[in-house]
Amino acid sequence: MGNVMTDAERLNLELRRNAPAAALSLSSLARRAAFPKGIPVQAAQASGCEYRATIGQVTNREGEPVPLPTMKKMLGDLDPRMSFLYSPQGGAPALRAAWRKRLLANEPNVEISLPMVTFALTHGISLVADLFVDEGVEVIVPNPSWGNYKGIFGLRRGAKFTTWDFFTGDGKLNIAGLKAALDATKGRSVVILNFPGNPTGYSPLHDEVEPLLEVLTSHKRPTVVVCDDAYQGLVFEDNANVKSLFFELTRRSDKNLLLPVKVDGATKELAFFGGRVGFLTFGLNREDSEPLIEKARAIARATVSSPPGPSQAVVLAALESPGIEEEIAQIRELLATRYRALREALPLVADSGFVPYPFNAGCFALLKAPENIDVEDLRLFLIENYSIGLVALPTVGALRIAYCSMDERDIRPMFIRLSTALADYTADKS
Amino acid sequence: MGNVMTDAERLNLELRRNAPAAALSLSSLARRAAFPKGIPVQAAQASGCEYRATIGQVTNREGEPVPLPTMKKMLGDLDPRMSFLYSPQGGAPALRAAWRKRLLANEPNVEISLPMVTFALTHGISLVADLFVDEGVEVIVPNPSWGNYKGIFGLRRGAKFTTWDFFTGDGKLNIAGLKAALDATKGRSVVILNFPGNPTGYSPLHDEVEPLLEVLTSHKRPTVVVCDDAYQGLVFEDNANVKSLFFELTRRSDKNLLLPVKVDGATKELAFFGGRVGFLTFGLNREDSEPLIEKARAIARATVSSPPGPSQAVVLAALESPGIEEEIAQIRELLATRYRALREALPLVADSGFVPYPFNAGCFALLKAPENIDVEDLRLFLIENYSIGLVALPTVGALRIAYCSMDERDIRPMFIRLSTALADYTADKS
Repeated sequence: MGNVMTDAERLNLELRRNAPAAALSLSSLARRAAFPKGIPVQAAQASGCEYRATIGQVTNREGEPVPLPTMKKMLGDLDPRMSFLYSPQGGAPALRAAWRKRLLANEPNVEISLPMVTFALTHGISLVADLFVDEGVEVIVPNPSWGNYKGIFGLRRGAKFTTWDFFTGDGKLNIAGLKAALDATKGRSVVILNFPGNPTGYSPLHDEVEPLLEVLTSHKRPTVVVCDDAYQGLVFEDNANVKSLFFELTRRSDKNLLLPVKVDGATKELAFFGGRVGFLTFGLNREDSEPLIEKARAIARATVSSPPGPSQAVVLAALESPGIEEEIAQIRELLATRYRALREALPLVADSGFVPYPFNAGCFALLKAPENIDVEDLRLFLIENYSIGLVALPTVGALRIAYCSMDERDIRPMFIRLSTALADYTADKS
Repeated sequence: MGNVMTDAERLNLELRRNAPAAALSLSSLARRAAFPKGIPVQAAQASGCEYRATIGQVTNREGEPVPLPTMKKMLGDLDPRMSFLYSPQGGAPALRAAWRKRLLANEPNVEISLPMVTFALTHGISLVADLFVDEGVEVIVPNPSWGNYKGIFGLRRGAKFTTWDFFTGDGKLNIAGLKAALDATKGRSVVILNFPGNPTGYSPLHDEVEPLLEVLTSHKRPTVVVCDDAYQGLVFEDNANVKSLFFELTRRSDKNLLLPVKVDGATKELAFFGGRVGFLTFGLNREDSEPLIEKARAIARATVSSPPGPSQAVVLAALESPGIEEEIAQIRELLATRYRALREALPLVADSGFVPYPFNAGCFALLKAPENIDVEDLRLFLIENYSIGLVALPTVGALRIAYCSMDERDIRPMFIRLSTALADYTADKS
């Protein structure tokens, strides 16, 4: 007598056949996960019925929502079905298709999954953590990197962090450091790439791309490579790479060893910080990726359920608007103006002993403090005495300047004041 | 030499002093959780600075967002700061205050926390699971209950489920069953109350409220009682309770034994199903509840980060609109009309052997099938042969009718057809 296979086991089996690296990389949580045959599935099966009494939401005879008039008026320019009714689990199909089309617009000859809509990028990364990280699994992140990776992979999943210094001593991207970190892993691992990066504001130079890809595709243990593409497209120098590494990784990946994952969204790419719309995409073809998407949807269903309707409606309408790429280009140009203003202002602090790390992209620049400076103490000193608000990064002894949030006309005056402030502070400490 | 206390240890100590039941109920994840001193904290400290370069979002000189014009136009009636910039972690302060005011409007003499904004109710319950459930902790739910509790507490947290039959054999609320389940627990437990309930559509009768409270407040082990108040206010019979049990539980709770928690939101109360705005509120005063709120915010930060801006803006504006309670009352009246249409149609299936469980509230009614009927098979039969979409609940052998989503004029015709269909199906099976 054979045992009946559970839905989760069936998904696991499909992954073992079609995406071995993904199958080997699943967390114990992910191995158990399958989308439950609950209300959403039953409602979908009844969607063609004349009489439908499946979902606990208020609709009229035509299946349209019945919003409160005051609220309907406030969202009058959006499709009320998207705004007021439950979104399908995993996001609105039209939005998922539109984002996929946008991803592939300049990337021929690559097979990727249908993107799943997430509650912005943190949620996308959190799903990666739930899918692929168990206690002790090695998560490889650069130092410095976004502080919240520690929360997402550490607090909830108990990951073991392996760090590599993002910059070499002479201020270059430390590709050998990434390779050494990867070579030192004992088992399966999850590698986070974040280009352009937070807090580094760095995108690889063109001649750094091939060595990076080589390190990742030549590794001989199962690896999930997560491209955190939050700042996709915000590149301000001609010698730096604009395209996400996700696509080339997907083209070259051996499915037995490597699973490329892309996390991105409207947050920065469409300047919709409050919207909370992101996407999770796998570097596998649509069919082979379905079990992974189903597991991600199951985990999301048990955490936050379906994503926000009004935000999805706005992003979908924006993507369908003919002038949207031009509007995005204008925001990029605005940031480029701020980037150039920062470049021009940097010589003002050249004598301070504070040295900028290389930066060419994204929203940030880092200013490395002299060895003996406590940057957290300095940060508070700048707030209290000079009314300058920056972010301290004690792990690399640097200050992060989010120039994206400053008017370009204010950058030079701030640096004039910062020059005085740094001299004041270092004189005080010496 | 003393050790330096971590932030998490400080919060744990405060809870042990001021909210012992909460302290004893924390999961290992929650004991570790404290809001990190990262970008959000550093940005808040710099909020009064003349020059602010702390956050990775695009703002102008006045700190206003710079949205894409197409997207700004679509959300033109909302505050662009709320729609386009990051919300504070835990939600917009004005929205949290407005929801608290609404909760307390008819509830004098009770001290509660500031509500935290969640990504709707699933996320609120998921935060409860993260805060209070470790592997093996007993979660007490009725049978039947919302299927997603299994996902939220089981898939991600490994809870042990203890169930009690919601209805007695003669169709009354089975308060003795709840007491027996609670008495049988070996350690700390989490009790889920869902009145009005999904899928039962039942709110306790007035004379059932006091015995329910007595069971919960007389239990002698640490207990978290979660009031899942998704369907708050949707009560259609005069003899049934309208108020959430949360408030009276909070008034009566011994802080050494009981922590009342309220999960609610705009989803059903404001018919904003797509919005994904919910609230998590603790039955402790503001000061004593702060460590719990901070832990919840830390866990949310590591999962989905801050909640959606446009949805929060809509809910806040709605709550501030003078006519909103009248609009909510109109939606309730619409549902009451559907409720009455269902009551009137039920005799049409009286001869079928299918018997309704008691219902008086919420969005649903249950039709119990005769013993020998496979309700899942019946559900598919109804879709395929009669174009009727209902939900099957195999654990209680019943069909759930979501009358909330049907126009009242369609309910009688559906029941006429259902009567034929059930006769057809049972004749076929006998």
